Amino acid sequence: MLNLRRISQVPKKSIRIISAMANPQQEKGSKSKLQFALKTPKGTKDWADKDMVIREAIFTQLSSIFKRHGGVTIDTPVFELREILAGKYGEDSKLIYNLEDQGGELCSLRYDLTVPFARFVAMNNIQNIKRYHIAKVYRRDQPAMTKGRMREFYQCDFDIAGNYDSMVPDAEALSITVEGLTSLGIKDFKIKINHRKILDGIFQIAGVRDEDVRKISSAVDKLDKSPWEVVKEEITVEKGQSVETADKIGEFVKLNGSLKEIFDVLSQDSAITSNEKAKQGLDDMATLMKYTKAFGIDQYISFDLSLARGLDYYTGIIYEVVTSASAPPKNAQELKKKSKNSDDASEYVGVGSIAAGGRYDNLVSMFSEASGKKGVSIPCVGISFGVERIFSLIKQRTELSTAIRPTATQVFVMAFGGGKDWTGYLPERMLVAKQLWNAGIEAEYVYKAKANPRKQFEAAEKSGCPIAVILGKEEYLDNKLRVKRLGPEFASDDGELIEAEELIPKVQQKLSEIYQGGVDEVTRLLQNI
Amino acid sequence: MLNLRRISQVPKKSIRIISAMANPQQEKGSKSKLQFALKTPKGTKDWADKDMVIREAIFTQLSSIFKRHGGVTIDTPVFELREILAGKYGEDSKLIYNLEDQGGELCSLRYDLTVPFARFVAMNNIQNIKRYHIAKVYRRDQPAMTKGRMREFYQCDFDIAGNYDSMVPDAEALSITVEGLTSLGIKDFKIKINHRKILDGIFQIAGVRDEDVRKISSAVDKLDKSPWEVVKEEITVEKGQSVETADKIGEFVKLNGSLKEIFDVLSQDSAITSNEKAKQGLDDMATLMKYTKAFGIDQYISFDLSLARGLDYYTGIIYEVVTSASAPPKNAQELKKKSKNSDDASEYVGVGSIAAGGRYDNLVSMFSEASGKKGVSIPCVGISFGVERIFSLIKQRTELSTAIRPTATQVFVMAFGGGKDWTGYLPERMLVAKQLWNAGIEAEYVYKAKANPRKQFEAAEKSGCPIAVILGKEEYLDNKLRVKRLGPEFASDDGELIEAEELIPKVQQKLSEIYQGGVDEVTRLLQNI
Repeated sequence: MLNLRRISQVPKKSIRIISAMANPQQEKGSKSKLQFALKTPKGTKDWADKDMVIREAIFTQLSSIFKRHGGVTIDTPVFELREILAGKYGEDSKLIYNLEDQGGELCSLRYDLTVPFARFVAMNNIQNIKRYHIAKVYRRDQPAMTKGRMREFYQCDFDIAGNYDSMVPDAEALSITVEGLTSLGIKDFKIKINHRKILDGIFQIAGVRDEDVRKISSAVDKLDKSPWEVVKEEITVEKGQSVETADKIGEFVKLNGSLKEIFDVLSQDSAITSNEKAKQGLDDMATLMKYTKAFGIDQYISFDLSLARGLDYYTGIIYEVVTSASAPPKNAQELKKKSKNSDDASEYVGVGSIAAGGRYDNLVSMFSEASGKKGVSIPCVGISFGVERIFSLIKQRTELSTAIRPTATQVFVMAFGGGKDWTGYLPERMLVAKQLWNAGIEAEYVYKAKANPRKQFEAAEKSGCPIAVILGKEEYLDNKLRVKRLGPEFASDDGELIEAEELIPKVQQKLSEIYQGGVDEVTRLLQNI
Repeated sequence: MLNLRRISQVPKKSIRIISAMANPQQEKGSKSKLQFALKTPKGTKDWADKDMVIREAIFTQLSSIFKRHGGVTIDTPVFELREILAGKYGEDSKLIYNLEDQGGELCSLRYDLTVPFARFVAMNNIQNIKRYHIAKVYRRDQPAMTKGRMREFYQCDFDIAGNYDSMVPDAEALSITVEGLTSLGIKDFKIKINHRKILDGIFQIAGVRDEDVRKISSAVDKLDKSPWEVVKEEITVEKGQSVETADKIGEFVKLNGSLKEIFDVLSQDSAITSNEKAKQGLDDMATLMKYTKAFGIDQYISFDLSLARGLDYYTGIIYEVVTSASAPPKNAQELKKKSKNSDDASEYVGVGSIAAGGRYDNLVSMFSEASGKKGVSIPCVGISFGVERIFSLIKQRTELSTAIRPTATQVFVMAFGGGKDWTGYLPERMLVAKQLWNAGIEAEYVYKAKANPRKQFEAAEKSGCPIAVILGKEEYLDNKLRVKRLGPEFASDDGELIEAEELIPKVQQKLSEIYQGGVDEVTRLLQNI
């Protein structure tokens, strides 16, 4: 509610204007002076109705998966001290929203959930934590480059921090990825996995100098959107590598297949097994394979040597989840067609990808050190779900099938009667609704004393309630209520007349018939569409 | 995850610094230059662990009450166009956080959830909606005045907009208030109700001129913190009313009691019944009483003529919920003691109050008009729960009783064995955990191949899981698992050895024994403490 507690201290003129706007009848002769556009800021929007139902279902579903794995959630402020965010995002730093300098600490709106997480872990000297965080982040994407790009959007992260046996949390993060997506009814996806150390080894083997590794990685990284011929050109022409080097890289980065297939190919390559970094990476993959098999998720995984993912940040495995809509173009012509998809998919996790992550062992210690604390290394691995993209996928699906109700009410309470003395039974309907609410049953009624039956049925239909409880003028006086199923297929169904005391058991019985098997509404929503 | 996709386009020097921080081992000779404090901005904090469990339980519980009444939720951006917020909060406008002018629209962080709601309703030409919104709002309270005041905090609003039969949504908002608070285990509260038109009438009867009504209301408003003698002095000395006027006001505003008691007193007062405004207000109260009786909430209500609540904004009934901790001081000495509670309780709803609201019929039309649309009046009534204060109350309660677990896991999967060939059964434990997760059962295990039994039991105890599933070295090979209750009272309980196929039914059976009656965890949490 507006706090106008101090309205009396406002100069009389301002009071008159505000009052004039709030109470137009009271102020004679004063005109409203303020004019403005009724809109949300660029790149932001309101969410309501069915969109909101879908979004909440996604968040609830993912949260329950995280909790199932022992995850805890945290809440961090929407803005951080400016220096916490500064210097973490490279060139993207210009996309950070700053708060105005109003005479206090300089702050900025958070750009992602990972930096706040690392700050939280370092600040609280946390040794280990499995945390999930579903919240909005802010990026001032430039409108020219980013048609339709949101500036405020949700991220959904799950990260495991701490020292554990090698690859165990990494495997669990992958299992969570599979469980999360399948629980949302998304089945047609692949998790592309690679390992930073294997890539580093490949570049070394191919003859790339250490100082060029980053820019070559960034070229390889584009293989999710561009065909090899284009990337090879970038490696040789733009980035000055020899054709032999580029070809050697090409031999490797074209490889993808099941974990076992690619593991076998690499472990039979003496160049790989004699390169220290590549060997370490390969050993990690061997360990990982034991656990992905135990979790039964191998069929979702593609060991893909072309996956690079902004290499600087990650220190171990890296992964990106793609759906069939995101296959890279096969040649330059297809690339031209797809080129209008900007590669700055900063609110999604890569073009067409719906989740991504990896191991990043040095971020927390960076925070500790930069703040003057002893830099304790807290290894981290995590997954970030691109919930906006997932939302779009699910929304598309729902538009083709079942209607989604914006409200959750199950019972519509109505009253029918007539004659001079008909009151409309409004307090009586309220009493019945209250009994239902007290029993945890969602119920509603029209806010009108005398509403004719047709209008009440229309309101009930609009609400989508599957059950009606009807107070008949005489029946009610006889301590009886009528319970009826709603919907076109029940049009000729008169329902059952019951004693008033049986209301709750009868409604509960009908509800369990309707929702057989006890599937909760969220699951039903997301799986049946 | 950090998006360092464009890291290759960053100047080499920046890359070195960032890389040095992310990978200290890699960069020889470069030193981390950035230093900063590891903290959240002033007035903000992180939430984690048990605090977070309590907060989420509060939000979930209130949401389910709102949904039960057919409420829908919306999500609005965290910042609005600056002109939307400007001029709405009187002198408090200086507490608004602005975003920096970075070359686009000027924006500010939302100060409450009501203005965004009115903007949303006007913008979308909504005729009626029952919406709830639980989200954070931002106020740059000055530290000197507001020791311990949060600058970022949650509000939880439920509002009914639309034209309905008189007082019906008002009554339902009151019922929701009662249901919300009692569902959170808060029983010792009173809803103080008054009506703007009755107050207006009282002031008229007492001889207050129209132009003085606001400042006199603001004085009366202080009766929740100051005794009458102090307020009377403000009315006469500071605000220039005669002693007779003040005394007349005093006769009325000291009145409080049940709806019926005060209604009877007022309806027998001819000054009241012959004053047009007061009579309208009284008629509204008569209607309201029919419905509060139907909802069975009369015992929570106090008709209190001293309640004023920033009168300008509200147009009908107004209400404020107080707990026993918030009784006003009886005299000036007690007032001195309480005076260190600032009366700028802007993040809470009044000093000591835990919820407040009322009817405000002109806000939406103000938005429509100011934006150049035809000003359609959409009457609104709502309640705002002071969730931060409610959180403090519940947290106090929990510190005195049951421990709250930060995680939701129910089953701890362990493995015991020994001898040279003992592998620790880590993949085997993962497989068992996966079966449990697939069945929707929350489970965890230590991320270590070989962990001795004691460490596993300690981890299980720390997690708070009530059940252990144990893989014995030989038993497992024999296709058997052991299911055991955890906890000091089960120390000598060896549990049951079962066939591996019986795992899920057995665990589900044990869980329903533990959580008899099917009370969900949220309810158990909040009611049993």
